[in-house]
Amino acid sequence: MSTITNHDTSSGLRGGIDLGGTKIQAVVVDRDQRVIGTARRPTPTTGGANDVVGALAETLQAAAESARVEVGALCGVGVGTPGAVDVALGTVSFARNLPGFDATVPLAKLLGDALGTNTALGNDVGVALDAEAKLGAGAGARSFLGVWWGTGVGGGFVIDGARWLGRGAAGEIGHTVVKRNGALCPCGRRGCIEAYAGRRAMELRARKLVKHGAKTMLFDLAEKKKLDRLTSGIWAKAVEKEDRLATRLIDRAVLALAAGIASSVNLLDVEAVVIGGGLGTRFGPPIAERIAQAMTPHLFVPDRPPRVSVAKLGDLSGAIGASLLIDATRE
Amino acid sequence: MSTITNHDTSSGLRGGIDLGGTKIQAVVVDRDQRVIGTARRPTPTTGGANDVVGALAETLQAAAESARVEVGALCGVGVGTPGAVDVALGTVSFARNLPGFDATVPLAKLLGDALGTNTALGNDVGVALDAEAKLGAGAGARSFLGVWWGTGVGGGFVIDGARWLGRGAAGEIGHTVVKRNGALCPCGRRGCIEAYAGRRAMELRARKLVKHGAKTMLFDLAEKKKLDRLTSGIWAKAVEKEDRLATRLIDRAVLALAAGIASSVNLLDVEAVVIGGGLGTRFGPPIAERIAQAMTPHLFVPDRPPRVSVAKLGDLSGAIGASLLIDATRE
Repeated sequence: MSTITNHDTSSGLRGGIDLGGTKIQAVVVDRDQRVIGTARRPTPTTGGANDVVGALAETLQAAAESARVEVGALCGVGVGTPGAVDVALGTVSFARNLPGFDATVPLAKLLGDALGTNTALGNDVGVALDAEAKLGAGAGARSFLGVWWGTGVGGGFVIDGARWLGRGAAGEIGHTVVKRNGALCPCGRRGCIEAYAGRRAMELRARKLVKHGAKTMLFDLAEKKKLDRLTSGIWAKAVEKEDRLATRLIDRAVLALAAGIASSVNLLDVEAVVIGGGLGTRFGPPIAERIAQAMTPHLFVPDRPPRVSVAKLGDLSGAIGASLLIDATRE
Repeated sequence: MSTITNHDTSSGLRGGIDLGGTKIQAVVVDRDQRVIGTARRPTPTTGGANDVVGALAETLQAAAESARVEVGALCGVGVGTPGAVDVALGTVSFARNLPGFDATVPLAKLLGDALGTNTALGNDVGVALDAEAKLGAGAGARSFLGVWWGTGVGGGFVIDGARWLGRGAAGEIGHTVVKRNGALCPCGRRGCIEAYAGRRAMELRARKLVKHGAKTMLFDLAEKKKLDRLTSGIWAKAVEKEDRLATRLIDRAVLALAAGIASSVNLLDVEAVVIGGGLGTRFGPPIAERIAQAMTPHLFVPDRPPRVSVAKLGDLSGAIGASLLIDATRE
């Protein structure tokens, strides 16, 4: 929270920003959580924290323009961010994928000053899960498991609409061990889901296989789009074009996700599983169906599986969830 | 529940029975849940459901005698049983390890008639976890994970003293996949914790290795004690005597348990892990320490691990938990 303003906050309008390592997604929502404006920009890959803050402010302004409202008419702007968030202090630490975020950044104050609005911070996967719990694929389920499949694999266990936080660090389903002594994970451990399914781990694996002579169009597709990494879109394109290496790595990811999710279902017997994140929303309902099928051999009660679906709010779940950080009724 | 009696129930005394595949453990507890009498008998391995009921009644009577109370002075008797329990109907189904329990058995009524008391049924691992939550190693923890390591591997996730039941089938931590395409589990699936750590799976593995020429004292020890299977005591004895095959299989079990428990801790960030069951309580605190150490490489937040300990109520946790099924204040 920063800069308390005198704007008319009776509008119920709020801004929400999903700050990712690749892109910034902003939305403006109305009192009923309907999205009335959106904008997307690439996340700066060079510069410092101020460049990121500038890009956040610009993206939110563009979303407000598309909604035909003034930024000053918003009750506030919520931000879902990677790294360790101190909600009370409005700071972000350890968000190492963002330029200038190696140290602790007072993001709430910096963005509040730039926009002249109230701001609030939340964890990126956490706010997306909150949005799905309230408005999306988890709505109506007493309990569900969220699996956010992107650069890494995050998630959470949601009971009665609230994330189970444990002692504060719950939700790391990506670091479920699906193969003891298995593949090396970017986290430094072995055999985690993320070692097989995380976009970063898959790219490292693809580079290694190419180095050893394997053929793939993955890196050519990225080069054509002037991308320095393999985005979800590139993976989807390569699979669509039946690239063998890309298909093999995605198949491997699906099996790892399925084994780890099924294990959690055996322990928690949730009603539903919601697949989100860049890769989850890009591949969409067919991948949820494939994950559900691959889970079956591991389910202890296979005749009554949980419903498996992709995030209903798609790649807006993070931004919409961030907007929920702002109380629409606060004057 | 069956046979409502006119006994003086103001005593607050209750009976609890843990019905296992190998042994029947009975306790009598007072109003303050203190154990004032115990008895143990082998579970009949032949005959029918009535033989099991007879053995249950006899064991409970012996526990009452050791407490110097009449069975008629008890408010009731609770039973923790394997299989699928219908609490309302007082029936047990699918308890295939018990003779005559292939079909659904009206156990509450049969035992109530035999003893002339109120009876109540609960799931064996469930009631043991309840006892640890209220009176044992889980007391004082906001959340913990129970891992019941015996013939199979059961368990549960406990929040604020109550087991999380999900849609009714939660708790199957033994069927967490720790190695995709790994060892065959007695459940028919592959790579579950139980495939490596369940006493039944370990015995099958030991028999197979012996068939292929491996040496071990495990089966000689069992024969000397006239046992037709490898009990927890036999495993402990063989490890104590540095039997190589037994040591190797227990080491393998510890690694599987540790990987699976660490995965659940990464997702749920519980305060504590309680190891119970026949093998857990037989090996005691040193095995909890070993499991804790083997978990470390898999923990996402390794500098703040959960407390790992063995069931404080030891092999009485099931029987004490069963006694908690009876309301001591009911007149």
